[in-house]
Amino acid sequence: MIKTDILIIGAGPTGLFAVFEAGLLKLKCHLIDALPQPGGQCAEIYPKKPIYDIPGFPEVLAGDLVDNLMEQCKQFEPGFTLGERAETIEKLEDGSFIVTTNKGTKHHARVVAIAGGLGSFEPRKPILDNLEFYEENGVEYFIKNPELFRGKRVVISGGGDSALDWSIFLSDVASQVTLVHRRNEFRGALDSVDKVQELKKAGKINLITPAEVVSLNGDKTLNSVTIEKEGETSILETDFFIPLFGLAPKLGPIGDWGLEIEKNAIKVNNALDYQTNIPGIFAIGDVNTYPGKLKLILCGFHEATLMCQAAYQIINPGKKYVLKYTTVSGIDGFDGTRKEAPKAVVKSIE
Amino acid sequence: MIKTDILIIGAGPTGLFAVFEAGLLKLKCHLIDALPQPGGQCAEIYPKKPIYDIPGFPEVLAGDLVDNLMEQCKQFEPGFTLGERAETIEKLEDGSFIVTTNKGTKHHARVVAIAGGLGSFEPRKPILDNLEFYEENGVEYFIKNPELFRGKRVVISGGGDSALDWSIFLSDVASQVTLVHRRNEFRGALDSVDKVQELKKAGKINLITPAEVVSLNGDKTLNSVTIEKEGETSILETDFFIPLFGLAPKLGPIGDWGLEIEKNAIKVNNALDYQTNIPGIFAIGDVNTYPGKLKLILCGFHEATLMCQAAYQIINPGKKYVLKYTTVSGIDGFDGTRKEAPKAVVKSIE
Repeated sequence: MIKTDILIIGAGPTGLFAVFEAGLLKLKCHLIDALPQPGGQCAEIYPKKPIYDIPGFPEVLAGDLVDNLMEQCKQFEPGFTLGERAETIEKLEDGSFIVTTNKGTKHHARVVAIAGGLGSFEPRKPILDNLEFYEENGVEYFIKNPELFRGKRVVISGGGDSALDWSIFLSDVASQVTLVHRRNEFRGALDSVDKVQELKKAGKINLITPAEVVSLNGDKTLNSVTIEKEGETSILETDFFIPLFGLAPKLGPIGDWGLEIEKNAIKVNNALDYQTNIPGIFAIGDVNTYPGKLKLILCGFHEATLMCQAAYQIINPGKKYVLKYTTVSGIDGFDGTRKEAPKAVVKSIE
Repeated sequence: MIKTDILIIGAGPTGLFAVFEAGLLKLKCHLIDALPQPGGQCAEIYPKKPIYDIPGFPEVLAGDLVDNLMEQCKQFEPGFTLGERAETIEKLEDGSFIVTTNKGTKHHARVVAIAGGLGSFEPRKPILDNLEFYEENGVEYFIKNPELFRGKRVVISGGGDSALDWSIFLSDVASQVTLVHRRNEFRGALDSVDKVQELKKAGKINLITPAEVVSLNGDKTLNSVTIEKEGETSILETDFFIPLFGLAPKLGPIGDWGLEIEKNAIKVNNALDYQTNIPGIFAIGDVNTYPGKLKLILCGFHEATLMCQAAYQIINPGKKYVLKYTTVSGIDGFDGTRKEAPKAVVKSIE
């Protein structure tokens, strides 16, 4: 059982900033995310895209924003349960919660903050018989650990940035990379398209277009895929099949937790602390809704901050918290680090 | 008469970010600030201090944050009325407002957003007969334009960073710089104290401590000050007297505009759009209050953003606004510039 003060569901920008704000209040956080790394959409969907409306950044790449937020909160030592989806919640008699993931990991906390963005991002799966059968037995939707593919044969399917980027990356890791796409045209960053072109010429990527993977073959684990190209089928031996057709957000199991839902989002009390209809459960960032709600990262930062104040009151009932400015008081990390502004010296001039 | 869409009172971080968010909605902004430059407290009081709780910045100097916000909003060409204090407001029959400053400058707008921070920063004035008489006739509380002092004799009073920094700066501009402080000890950044020490030894700063300026002399304009040092008085001829005893925030004339005030802050509707009890007047950032309010810059950013949406509805009644993400749609500046994320290319690989 993982124990923490605030259990944050969703490790996107809002969830990460909540770790920082909670840390200022001496509260510990643990984050659950279905994706294999922190950062949410910013890290998974558009890490190389510039965002223009983060206050104080005339332009920042989504991936860099995530790196900055990780750096900002690291002194408060957040815990992570990654690659797992929060599945069920149970409220104990003392008002605390147990949240269990799809893989059975249990988390206990007095406060739950849902920062789930548009929902958990589920891979768009191709329609293939036996697909589920081979999941984790040769079929992978994410590259969590590239070492898994070292010296192996992989077939990647898809025509966007993910398919291009991972084909490029794995061409140095896997023993054989085959990229299958139903069109001749790819849609991605110019340099990625050019790089795949190059690697194809160098014989490091085997490109099959216009074509589709139409069946998966093997005994207990995948050992080949059947590819249909212009009406003809062929069998290609492989250790892995990685379909990269993008991700689609789904509110998922959280939708069944008894929370008040409106337009696929969780209703919260924006007049106070972004708490849901279940005391002790908050919803912050894109996952919530209220009159005038804007699904912007900067709004999630504000909501996270106010949520932490309310969490503090729940976790420390009756204790009064006095806001201190970081500029004045500095920051004490849970890891023993201290940040503070240089103090003015008092010195006489002779 | 200066005309604009949203008149923002206060050019601190919240006001500056409101310019950006308004710009995304094609609304023009004009800002009034009592200080001689934009940035509010961050620029005037602690430009060199690090802030740790701006989301995405593990650490940022207050002055750099202001520079970034200016850069971020400049494409939307904000207008500025600086060094003037918003004094009176008049609501016209069509619901628009005229705001007049203490210097008589008039501004007309359909929406007024008060982003006045803790209030307008008024210099702490020494208690001296005739002080007001010599204001702008030899007594200055801010150095708006250093050229005013070129080749002149100046007497600076104070023992903090402002007094130290301006003594250093003006030692290269004025013909004579005298720094008077009631103690031998100065309180400031180490390198400023050391630099003043050096300049004193080099004869470029005349230091008189422990001493006080006890009277101002002159006919229509100041021509000398009387200095008391350890019980003895002497007269020092000078063109300017610059007392730098810090700034104190005052809500000021805004307090008489008929707005609902609580604990020296303006009450707003935080459940919707941060509007005050007077329709068309909003209050955002540290100047407002509501249940759970935190006087943090990041909260001001959120409030500014929601305020702009409501302002859009007031200025464009009946028109529907659909939120577009800057990452997807890019930004069109009023100055003709365009920012946008690089587009994915569609290209076939041969």
